Amino acid sequence: MHQETAYIINPLPSGSTVKVFAPATVANVVCGYDVLGFALQAPGDQVELTLNESGEVTLDLITGDDGLLPTDPDKNIASAVVKYYLNTIGRNQGVSVVLHKKMPLNSGMGSSSASSVAALVAVNHLMGNPLSRIDLLPLAMEGERIGCGNAHADNVAPALLGGLVLVRSHHPLDAKKLPFPPGLHVAVIHPHVDVPTRESRRILKDRVPLRDAVTQWGNVAGLVAGFCTGDIGLIGRSMEDVIFEPVRAMLIPGFYELKQTALNAGAIGFGISGSGPSVFALCQSEATALKICEELKNLLNTFRIQSDTFVSEMNPEGASIVGE
Amino acid sequence: MHQETAYIINPLPSGSTVKVFAPATVANVVCGYDVLGFALQAPGDQVELTLNESGEVTLDLITGDDGLLPTDPDKNIASAVVKYYLNTIGRNQGVSVVLHKKMPLNSGMGSSSASSVAALVAVNHLMGNPLSRIDLLPLAMEGERIGCGNAHADNVAPALLGGLVLVRSHHPLDAKKLPFPPGLHVAVIHPHVDVPTRESRRILKDRVPLRDAVTQWGNVAGLVAGFCTGDIGLIGRSMEDVIFEPVRAMLIPGFYELKQTALNAGAIGFGISGSGPSVFALCQSEATALKICEELKNLLNTFRIQSDTFVSEMNPEGASIVGE
Repeated sequence: MHQETAYIINPLPSGSTVKVFAPATVANVVCGYDVLGFALQAPGDQVELTLNESGEVTLDLITGDDGLLPTDPDKNIASAVVKYYLNTIGRNQGVSVVLHKKMPLNSGMGSSSASSVAALVAVNHLMGNPLSRIDLLPLAMEGERIGCGNAHADNVAPALLGGLVLVRSHHPLDAKKLPFPPGLHVAVIHPHVDVPTRESRRILKDRVPLRDAVTQWGNVAGLVAGFCTGDIGLIGRSMEDVIFEPVRAMLIPGFYELKQTALNAGAIGFGISGSGPSVFALCQSEATALKICEELKNLLNTFRIQSDTFVSEMNPEGASIVGE
Repeated sequence: MHQETAYIINPLPSGSTVKVFAPATVANVVCGYDVLGFALQAPGDQVELTLNESGEVTLDLITGDDGLLPTDPDKNIASAVVKYYLNTIGRNQGVSVVLHKKMPLNSGMGSSSASSVAALVAVNHLMGNPLSRIDLLPLAMEGERIGCGNAHADNVAPALLGGLVLVRSHHPLDAKKLPFPPGLHVAVIHPHVDVPTRESRRILKDRVPLRDAVTQWGNVAGLVAGFCTGDIGLIGRSMEDVIFEPVRAMLIPGFYELKQTALNAGAIGFGISGSGPSVFALCQSEATALKICEELKNLLNTFRIQSDTFVSEMNPEGASIVGE
């Protein structure tokens, strides 16, 4: 599509700045591997872009990454997607990129997606918004490819669009924001163990039993129906994964104890966030989410594993401009 | 559950009669193998029950089956489920059963389900409705076991409950009636070729590629989201089956020509009804459905295959009492 589209570009003046926040996201939502994800209010990344006359995209500062992210502007997601965006719309433009990582890396919470989406929403704003949010989705997926080697949309789509997003198909790309009942809170617990996405995908099998696949799509259907109709009981019963969780749970110490603790404490459902190691509990109240964070942190402590915890409502808006 | 429940039985007097119609159903709805089905307004079966003092369930008349259905009351679904029902509620009761088959057998339109559901709704009515419709579902599945060897719910659930029904899980049984947009019409074309359900299930593989399973559950999620939110475009894009259709289409002469003809004529989507050989097109108007029936009947004629065609709105109510 990009070659043939004439974009209506109305760039802000040189020296203009914008700060964009893009949220962490929970992909898969237990049973919906590669097709479902939702956005949190926090944590997330903030990207600050400033237009200049240099004609180049420069990566001028990264904070909060403990020196772990690439500083080469072609390899760092935030600056690389800005370049990709400018190339797509056919514009030669100097941009200074500043990235404030405000969430853990390699956590299963969509860290690379947050950087990619924040940078794209920012540069698109500075160019006068020639692309809609949904038009930015393929570009954000390119950011995922740079960051993780796979151009999946189940983190970038909710980071960009907000709420719960269904990615029905990647080829052709077909994403839709779904309704969800109000008041849902999410507890995310990030244990400090290392499970890179690529490794986590590698342990999955190429073929699955048909009966497991049918069980899984019954649950995916139930989860979507539960969200669309506000049926909390159905959402909970559908948050079951017979294909990936049994494999990926091995990478998360005490996974089944964590799960049972969360369900006993009143979670609607519990599972691995993305490819882990973070886990999440969907809850009907902030109080339940806070209680679950505390209990799971304590339980991980008994395994001598440190953790971060986050409590957030579901985020209906996705990435947002937080300063100009 | 049935052993421990005390049923509140208020039987009508001996000699009381009821006539119940239960509709044909389209199971799977292309991508939702074993988990989705919807009810038609017509065709369907009519069952007529009369209470008597004999203490026995008798099968006194079958019409419309060309002599193909079992006349042994323990083997014919209509009478067998009446016996099973009475046994379940712990009642010894004479009942005369009359079955009017008003739809083709082995057609993939839920013929056995229609008989099972009509008989159960009828006997439950005569007993003073001790069971709700959803409580009748496991008994109707027992009828499916008698008729087809498999206790699946994707035909009986919509025949019983009406509308579009999601069967998230069979063990434990978890069925939910979903919203659907108004005005949908269905064209069903029944080619006169023989594809018994058992054979059709037998040719399926035990394992499927993970990537096909993911594609399928993306489509199942899209179909459910499309129905729940009234997004006709999404419904259409989701009516794609990468696992079963490529195998089962071989059993239906000219399947892909039929499909292309229906889509060219304006169908939202097209696929095999249940395990075939009937095919169906989901349409936005009666006129489109009628046109598709005519074109597909003509096309089948060129293959020297006779066919029946049916046009119906989606049936929101399911089985209904049509006479007392």
